[in-house]
Amino acid sequence: MKNTFPNKRIKNIEKYFKSLRDEICLCFENIEDNIKNVSNAGLKAGKFKKRVWKRGADEGFSSGGGGVVSIMNGRVFEKVGVNISSVMGTFSEEMRNEITGASNNNKFFATGISLVAHMHSPHIPAAHMNLRYIHTTKGWFGGGIDLTPMYGKPDKIKKQFHNALKEMCNKHDSRYYGKFKKWCDEYFYLPHRNEARGMGGIFFDNMEENWDQTFRFTKDVGQTFLNTFPNIVIQEIDKKWTKRQREKQLIKRGRYVEFNLLYDKGTAFGLKTGGNIDAIFMSLPPSVSWL
Amino acid sequence: MKNTFPNKRIKNIEKYFKSLRDEICLCFENIEDNIKNVSNAGLKAGKFKKRVWKRGADEGFSSGGGGVVSIMNGRVFEKVGVNISSVMGTFSEEMRNEITGASNNNKFFATGISLVAHMHSPHIPAAHMNLRYIHTTKGWFGGGIDLTPMYGKPDKIKKQFHNALKEMCNKHDSRYYGKFKKWCDEYFYLPHRNEARGMGGIFFDNMEENWDQTFRFTKDVGQTFLNTFPNIVIQEIDKKWTKRQREKQLIKRGRYVEFNLLYDKGTAFGLKTGGNIDAIFMSLPPSVSWL
Repeated sequence: MKNTFPNKRIKNIEKYFKSLRDEICLCFENIEDNIKNVSNAGLKAGKFKKRVWKRGADEGFSSGGGGVVSIMNGRVFEKVGVNISSVMGTFSEEMRNEITGASNNNKFFATGISLVAHMHSPHIPAAHMNLRYIHTTKGWFGGGIDLTPMYGKPDKIKKQFHNALKEMCNKHDSRYYGKFKKWCDEYFYLPHRNEARGMGGIFFDNMEENWDQTFRFTKDVGQTFLNTFPNIVIQEIDKKWTKRQREKQLIKRGRYVEFNLLYDKGTAFGLKTGGNIDAIFMSLPPSVSWL
Repeated sequence: MKNTFPNKRIKNIEKYFKSLRDEICLCFENIEDNIKNVSNAGLKAGKFKKRVWKRGADEGFSSGGGGVVSIMNGRVFEKVGVNISSVMGTFSEEMRNEITGASNNNKFFATGISLVAHMHSPHIPAAHMNLRYIHTTKGWFGGGIDLTPMYGKPDKIKKQFHNALKEMCNKHDSRYYGKFKKWCDEYFYLPHRNEARGMGGIFFDNMEENWDQTFRFTKDVGQTFLNTFPNIVIQEIDKKWTKRQREKQLIKRGRYVEFNLLYDKGTAFGLKTGGNIDAIFMSLPPSVSWL
């Protein structure tokens, strides 16, 4: 099975995801250390804790691989999780027809990084980033970044975030931003509430045209996350919040849970392929309300 | 369409569900008023608030009906919702093959009462009760009661609750308790965590043998809820709780959310038939944590 996958490319991607994870964790820990005016400065600055997990053979999947979940509960980041993983195995009969390139051969390899940050401050949106490479008989990149405001409509943040995404996309292909923004809006949508999950961002999948180019694009998405979200955090962190704003945030987080458990394909993929529960549910918020 | 349904029987069932709702709400409000030693006695005693909802015609369902959600946020009951509803319409092509008696004729009528109580005290289990009557070309009762402990293993409560259910079931049919307890255990199960939702109870469906007998059984299930759960509340309410016990409760509530959004058929039925979101998500806890 090993030889059917492009091992050298996979090693490069895994190396990149790991270095991106390290850079993000360092950046977030620095924010925790250096910001003194935050409303709950009395709390200890957070540090990431790592949990290694291995994928077991169960539920009829031949399986292997695993990952590392890094979780931090800090004074700025109420809960942030970054998971990197590489898993391989065979898709079930039910799944193979849903996955690109898996209908004749149900072996797969998947590696990815996924991040969700839930902030103490209702003024700072929750952040989500995911980058992944999947190989069946074909190989493709997918992923995206999006932000979910927790209180009000922070137009300034939306503008700076989308401008940065547009500028980055335009360096690669002038059609990307429009296409991937629309995809994101359509994907992160709660039909039962006729409600968008957040302020959007970009979402892409099945990107397999040119390996070097799409890997460069994928890396640029990761870099754009690092160039935008930490700045938004720093810029908003001094704003105080009220009890009522905090309540609104906890209710908005309920929508996040509804989306992830009812509609998210990554969650469903994880549960169906016997993934690690800690890693799959890393995205769920630390504190939530349904009134 | 009207004439294909047993209108007189339906009126009787609706009348019973309404009177059960009134009795439960009155009983819970009395507990709120009369219990003085509760840890958060400083809060105001709760009162139920009613919200009437009508089912709109959308998503290609011909539809009608509606319901009333009664919600109370009190000092003993952190959040309790009781919904009664009667809805009618036609099942979608996708659904008609899944529903008893709907494959030749996709018209349906459904009426029910459903209750979920989340308590302030981690020592009192969350309670769930649902009774329903559905008519397609056939008519049947379904429902059940189950409790979900939030902290530790309250064996005493489990014993008194199951004994009461067993005694009630045995008055109707000596096979009921064993069968319906097993059904409940199998239904309220989280496969992704290999974990039961709670301490079980009883669950029954497609009960259509003899209309008068099954209606009597259904009413007895409602009465057993009234005879057991309020007593458990009163018996446990003086127990103080620690911050750590409260934290455990909030995490356990996360499992409740996972079950309801990932597996509950009532939730899926509601979302698929264009049901009222407030009524469907009434079951979700007021305060939840995922660490």
